[in-house]
Formats: sequence, structure tokens, C-alpha cells
Amino acid sequence: MGVRVSEGEIARRRRRLEEELDGKGLTGVCLFAPHHIFYLSGFAFIATERPIALAWAFGRRPVLFVPLLEREHAGEARDVEVITYPEYPDERHPMERLADLLRDLGLDGKGIGVDSDGYGGGYGYRGPKLSEVLSAEVVLVAEVIGRMMAVKSPEEIELLRESSKWANLAHSLLQEHTAPGRTETEISARASLEASAAMFRALGPDYRPTRPGLPAQAGFRGQVGLRSAVPHVITTNARIKRGDVLVTGATADVGGYWAELERTMIVGKPTDDQRRCFELMLAAQDLVFAEIRPGRRCADVDRAVREFFAKEGIGKYWRHHTGHALGIRMHEAPFLDVGDDTVLKPGMVFSVEPGIYVPGFAGFRHSDTVVVTEDGNERLTCYPRALADLVIE
Amino acid sequence: MGVRVSEGEIARRRRRLEEELDGKGLTGVCLFAPHHIFYLSGFAFIATERPIALAWAFGRRPVLFVPLLEREHAGEARDVEVITYPEYPDERHPMERLADLLRDLGLDGKGIGVDSDGYGGGYGYRGPKLSEVLSAEVVLVAEVIGRMMAVKSPEEIELLRESSKWANLAHSLLQEHTAPGRTETEISARASLEASAAMFRALGPDYRPTRPGLPAQAGFRGQVGLRSAVPHVITTNARIKRGDVLVTGATADVGGYWAELERTMIVGKPTDDQRRCFELMLAAQDLVFAEIRPGRRCADVDRAVREFFAKEGIGKYWRHHTGHALGIRMHEAPFLDVGDDTVLKPGMVFSVEPGIYVPGFAGFRHSDTVVVTEDGNERLTCYPRALADLVIE
Repeated sequence: MGVRVSEGEIARRRRRLEEELDGKGLTGVCLFAPHHIFYLSGFAFIATERPIALAWAFGRRPVLFVPLLEREHAGEARDVEVITYPEYPDERHPMERLADLLRDLGLDGKGIGVDSDGYGGGYGYRGPKLSEVLSAEVVLVAEVIGRMMAVKSPEEIELLRESSKWANLAHSLLQEHTAPGRTETEISARASLEASAAMFRALGPDYRPTRPGLPAQAGFRGQVGLRSAVPHVITTNARIKRGDVLVTGATADVGGYWAELERTMIVGKPTDDQRRCFELMLAAQDLVFAEIRPGRRCADVDRAVREFFAKEGIGKYWRHHTGHALGIRMHEAPFLDVGDDTVLKPGMVFSVEPGIYVPGFAGFRHSDTVVVTEDGNERLTCYPRALADLVIE
Repeated sequence: MGVRVSEGEIARRRRRLEEELDGKGLTGVCLFAPHHIFYLSGFAFIATERPIALAWAFGRRPVLFVPLLEREHAGEARDVEVITYPEYPDERHPMERLADLLRDLGLDGKGIGVDSDGYGGGYGYRGPKLSEVLSAEVVLVAEVIGRMMAVKSPEEIELLRESSKWANLAHSLLQEHTAPGRTETEISARASLEASAAMFRALGPDYRPTRPGLPAQAGFRGQVGLRSAVPHVITTNARIKRGDVLVTGATADVGGYWAELERTMIVGKPTDDQRRCFELMLAAQDLVFAEIRPGRRCADVDRAVREFFAKEGIGKYWRHHTGHALGIRMHEAPFLDVGDDTVLKPGMVFSVEPGIYVPGFAGFRHSDTVVVTEDGNERLTCYPRALADLVIE
């Protein structure tokens, strides 16, 4: 088991994309989104104001178009030619230089597939659309790549399985270090550092994180006590106290893949109300595990959860859909949502996280990462789920 | 000194934007970019597949349009009305609900200012352009807001000054903890946690980070030893050894503002070659401090640095422009780059970071945050710059 996808996997993805786009009159693609570039070249980078693109004339080796400061770093990408431009904005805009490159590659005058018509930017970037600097018919192909990415290969599933282990470890450490009187920041930092140090030691010198920061992370993200009821709150560095409900999160970067593991923990003996909400949340999650199998639709799964909320009379504590796909990105399409009619297929990977949020009281959510199998689903994150295992004494 | 901008500051920004857009035939704006929403409402959030927008009919109170799971959290925004939609994608797409809201606000049928024609997305989001669901003339106003954001107010400069202090502290701790035999991950995690804990204690309960993770951060981001020559490399968890050149980075979140502080450190007695590169880098940075003053152009400053590289015969070790504006975002426009003709004005804030990168040897870069003053510039980050102060014994 490797710690990143193989050369063969990258080659298969490229062949597959060529096949998917066959017959659409495209001579190649030019991709700007970091996750698409990573998917097709293994190049992980820090996106800034400087555009980076993967320019690929079908039948040739893809070209990674990068600013000079990424020259040596881009050399770590898989089976690409690296071509640099000096800087952004520079006296000549990088998008004009990219157009030159695409012309050199014979990608003008016909159809070219893109994930966006120009660099999506951020960090103060401004520039023309690709279609403004290149004479070509620009065709959006992001959905084609998105559909490919939604069904994970065996290698990808192994990376998510490996990621799940380290998320389990990070969460174990988080639970161990959680105690009344400690702050969420210190508990989280300690668990994340210890789990990351273990990862580096266990996975050896071939292991490389794909993002800045610690590769294994566990924490509360502000969901402590009353604020556990607010799903996407940001930390206030709360001090843990007896009676608190805590909603956690843990993940780990293995080859650029991130499993998702979240748990509800209770500090001290749970009250009856806490216990009741916890058990309802657990029942909702069990229901989802039973629903996910090939042939069902994303919408069916979410509808079952919404019906459960209605039947139990807790609709007013509903705040979000059942889950999302994940892989290279923490959230990906499709979504376990009444509005998503995607049919589940083996290899799709989802978070399963129906949550109950009672304002002024507490929030309750577990999240597990599951992969759709031939006849159901398999849970990759195997951290204990029962209340008895999640009480901080 | 507060730890976030005042209500008055938010009100001034709104008045100013209304004035800037006066006479353009716009009845209001609809903004999607998280940094624009934060700038005009103080609402910091985790962007996901669920669109969030600030819908503002001039003359009325702005409306924050958020998914249900952000309802309570959005209540922390400054002087806005909060309107929720159930979920994305849902049976009715949030962009259609947003169009309803904009019609209710009277923003259809005329001109509406936007920062992008629809939600920029990410995380698997797909949806129509705003112009596809609303009968209105959509006018891009991102550049107007960008120009406003480029000149910092006295309050913003105070927040960056406060951020600089905590970056100084985080970097002090990083330097203290750096020693041969330790790994970059453990040094960085320890320094970041200690500095963050100090921040929480010093700044008190009103202090709130605006992003997940530790609010003060210091580290090497992979630039250790030979890899110090690769500017945007990602950590390999290198073990520090005698003879290494290290390129560091430190920052801290104060009210959503992030100063930038970077230093070159050398482990053990510097060699002559290390010393020579270090002194050249320092001379280049000194040159920039002398160049930055009102009336000069961004391009002039960068050109002076490029001439310095040419004169010293080190052009082949040049990798990137001199610096970038910063504030709410780590990088913002304008750029200290030969291609940027922006005239420097008092209140603009830049990183100053000319770097020298010698492949197969080492990289050398300091970065300081400076604010343009009436007659020159002031350095906000005050960490020692001289080699003698940056040698790890």
C-alpha cells in the first residue's frame, strides 16, 4: 500500500478523460482548478495570485504551466513537462503567455476543454478570460471530470482507508486529552501534533503532506457547550467544563485524500435530554448506513432522514443535508440531499452525518466516511459510536 | 485598541461603497466573495458548497443570505438582517431563492453590482449565473471594492500592528525551539500553540479568530536545508541539522487581519557563501524600504529590485516579485511588480520580500509588513533582521 496514487493510476485517469471527451471535437484541455491539476498530475501546490494550468494536447505529454517560483517544485509532478513564466502580473500577462503555449501545442483554432474560462484566481488576481486571448472554442468539461472523480478507484479507496486510520488515531488522542478545565485549542493542538508525528514516523520518507499545516488534525472548531448547537461556528477557545456537549472533527492527509470522522462527546454523566438527542442522532445515522447501496439515489437517502426527523417531531432541529462526497476535497459533489438525483454506484465515497441542533441547548452529530460497495456500503472510519464510549469522565 | 473593527468602521465602508457606485445606475449590490462579505458585515464563515451572499439595496439594511446551518452564527454579523434558505442543492436551488429575495428588495429590473455573476463555489457547487435567474443588469464592481480595500483605514492599520506583535512572538518562539535534531513539524506546532495560547490570554474574551485552526502560526513550510531554495514547497517534516538554511513564516489573526513576517535563519556558524547570499538579500530588502513612499509606483519599486539583481549578477537566482498588498487576505492586489502601475498611497500595506534562491544550495528571504505613510513607510513587523540575530547556535 502506497502513500500516494501510482503512476499507473495517473495514466489511467488521463486515458479515461480522453475517452470521455472523445467525439466532442476537442484537441485537448486546459485546466486551472488545483484539484483537477492534482488529480491528473499529482502536483499539489499553494494557489496564489499566480495562475497555474495543466495544458494537455491529447496524444502528447501534458504541460504544467507554472510561475518561475514553482519551477523546482513542479518537477515533483508525475509525467509532465514543466514550462514556466516569470511572474504575475509582470509586463506581459501570464494568460497571454499561456495562450502562446496553447498555440504552440496546436490547441487553437478548434475546441479546447476547460474547467473555467480563465484562472479562477483569488488573492487579488485579475486577468482576461482564456477565450479572450485564444482563438478556440472553449468548452466546459468540469462536470465530466467531476463525474470521474465521484467514483473512486481501488487505489483511492485504499488511501481513504489509510486516512481513516490516522483520523481514528487523532480522534483517540483528542478524546484522551479532553478534560474539564482544558481549552479546546490546547487539546486540539496536542492531539493533532501527536497524531501527525506518529504518521510521519509510520509512513516513512515517501510520505508527503499535500497542504501546509499538520497532516493529521482533530479538534472541536468551536462546537463546545452551548455553541455545539451551531454547526459551522469558529473557535472561541472555550474551556471544557462538566456538562458540555462537544462536537468534534478529525481527518488526515494521505496522498491528498481526506477521510472525515466526527463524534459527539459528553463531559460528565449525560443528562436525560442529552441522552435522548444523542440516541436520536445515532438512530438517524444507522438509518443512513442501511439506506446506502447501489441503485438508490442520493435524494432517497436524504429523504429518509428528513422523514425520520418529521416522524420524531424534531424537524425544527434539522440544519443540513445528510452528507457529501469527499476525496481530494473535504466536500465534493454529489450530495446526500433531496435535491440531488445522482444514482449511487460502487466506489462512491460519502460522509454520513445527519445532525440534530437544539439552539440554547446543544448539537449532536457523528460523521463517518463510507464507500458504496457492490451490495451496500462499508464504513472506513471505525471509531466507537456509542454514547458509553464517548463520555469524558 | 479593539480586537476587531468597530461598528463605525463598517458603517463608513458601506457609505463609501455607496458613494463610489453613485451615478452608475445601481440600486444595490449582491456580493458572494467571503472577503467582501467580511469587509462589509464582519461575518467570518467557512465557505462550502452552500452559497452565502450579502444582498444590499442601497438605503436599507443589508441582508445576509445564508443556509439554515449558519442561522445562529450569522447572528454575530454586524448590523445586517439574516435570511436563511434550507440547504444546497435542495429541491429548489438557493440561487432561485436568492433571486426571490433580490426581487423582494427591489433589486430587479435595474442595475445591480456584483463581485461575480453567481456564487464562485468550490466544494462541488454548481448553479446558474445570477443573470440567468434575475432580470437585472449585472455590473461587476469587484475592482471598486478592491481599490477601497487597498487603502487601509487607521483601524485596519492598528489591527495589522497588533497582528504583527503576535507574529513577532510566534517567530520568537519558533526561533527558540529550533535546534538540530528536531523536526519542523514539532517546532512549528509548539511555537504556534504557545503563541496562540498567549494571544487568547492577552486579548481576552472579546477576541475571536476568524478562521479554523490556531490563530498564531509560525513554521518553515518545508523550506529547510536544500529545500529552502524552493519558495512554495510543502513540508516534508525535515529534521533540522547543522548547516541548514531555514526560511520561516509567521502570522496571527487579529480581527481577520494577518501581518506577514518571514526570516532566513542559519543553523550553526554561517559559511561564506551563506553569509554573502544573506547580505545580498538584506541589501535588496533595505533598498525596498528606501523606495516605498507615496507617489512612487508599485512597478518602480520592483524595477529597482530587478536592477539590483542584474547589477549584482544574481538574476538567475530571482524567482518572484518584491511583494504584495495584504490585509484580510494573505495576498491582495496591488503587487510590487514591474507589471503593476498602481501609485502608492498612504495607508497601503505591503509585504517586502525580495528573495534569492540558489538551486542545490539554499534560499534567502525575509518578509516584513510595511504601511505607506505620508512621507515614506513604517515597518509593522519588528523582528530582528541581521544575520547575527538569526543564527541558531
